[in-house]
Amino acid sequence: MTAHLYDLVLADGRRLSPYCWAAKLALAHKGVTLETTPTRFVDISTVAGGGFKTVPVTEIDGATIGDSFALALHLEKTRPDAPALFGGESAVALTRGVAAQGAYLLGKMSRPMVLAIHDALDAETQGYFRASREKMFRHTLEEVAANPDASVAAAKDAMTPLRILLRGQPFLGGDAPLFADFLIAGLFQWARVVGAVDYLAGEERIGPWFGRLEERYGETLAATRG
Amino acid sequence: MTAHLYDLVLADGRRLSPYCWAAKLALAHKGVTLETTPTRFVDISTVAGGGFKTVPVTEIDGATIGDSFALALHLEKTRPDAPALFGGESAVALTRGVAAQGAYLLGKMSRPMVLAIHDALDAETQGYFRASREKMFRHTLEEVAANPDASVAAAKDAMTPLRILLRGQPFLGGDAPLFADFLIAGLFQWARVVGAVDYLAGEERIGPWFGRLEERYGETLAATRG
Repeated sequence: MTAHLYDLVLADGRRLSPYCWAAKLALAHKGVTLETTPTRFVDISTVAGGGFKTVPVTEIDGATIGDSFALALHLEKTRPDAPALFGGESAVALTRGVAAQGAYLLGKMSRPMVLAIHDALDAETQGYFRASREKMFRHTLEEVAANPDASVAAAKDAMTPLRILLRGQPFLGGDAPLFADFLIAGLFQWARVVGAVDYLAGEERIGPWFGRLEERYGETLAATRG
Repeated sequence: MTAHLYDLVLADGRRLSPYCWAAKLALAHKGVTLETTPTRFVDISTVAGGGFKTVPVTEIDGATIGDSFALALHLEKTRPDAPALFGGESAVALTRGVAAQGAYLLGKMSRPMVLAIHDALDAETQGYFRASREKMFRHTLEEVAANPDASVAAAKDAMTPLRILLRGQPFLGGDAPLFADFLIAGLFQWARVVGAVDYLAGEERIGPWFGRLEERYGETLAATRG
């Protein structure tokens, strides 16, 4: 069957959300074909019958799943013969740690990107984005975006554990990618789509890791406009 | 059988190394009784027949294992009926990520602690410690220890993923601790033994998590002088 994912977009249709990218990589990993509906921030609450506040929202197997981690758990349970996304209960718990690491990185990586994201949204969505992000950061977008060099340096510093890990193994999941890889790859893909900061530039461990994911999921990652 | 661990000490016998603490927690988790030999930094190369550069060095089951992660893998393989330290191959790979996160945290947490550690070593060991750490940090210990408030704040910031994770589950390993918990707990125990910075103060998620580990491994964690 084909899954259906409501995919967050910028005004020109570019697919934005790191969590949507993680979900799309997880679906590709399990061999599930996918259709997407471009969805603006301000339309999230209206999709799939309503009731969802965040993306991805995914319709699959007769269910509607409003979270990328929950989708990955669903895929693991329903597609046990496809390559693993976790590989056991302990791995699920440990992948929650990677998700927490990803949330931290998201905050760091987003600072020098927020104005570029804002400027790439339509006028109605800009109002929502500015209000919600200024509440989240407790500063104006202009204040958050100030000192981009320092913000980029802080984000790069926060990637240190990833660099250390990739010295010793090709993927976060070991010899093959797991959902942990997709959670972090989603962030780099999000940054790449926005284009304001090239976080992969000069990354001798992280760059090749992302390249290995592109070798496996090139079609998914190339679909930056769906 | 009883395992034997060469345990890094300060001049007054306090047990220092975060990786030794992780190893001791892993041994306790698997129900292995333990004897320790207090070992100074400058004596590491002479223990267990020589050839080791770092601690913990552990003699167990007729083998000598010179790394806490390798020890945990050995325990998991040889004691499959005791509580798990990993829980499968994927979990091993993901725990390497926690170890990388721990190495990053170690660097951050150590900055405001380095002079206190130096001052608590005997004169011979102080020389080794200063030379090796100044090479590592590429600054004098006094420079590394400058601006302790900023260093503590940076270390606290780097603990953010741990705080996020512990909102949703009691241990890094989920409902029960895994080696991932011990890798991080070793850092907080190390800081507690040194006493220069109280990293658990005011930590509403991390403090109770460490308390839950103390409930389970209180005897191990109380043996700060062996």
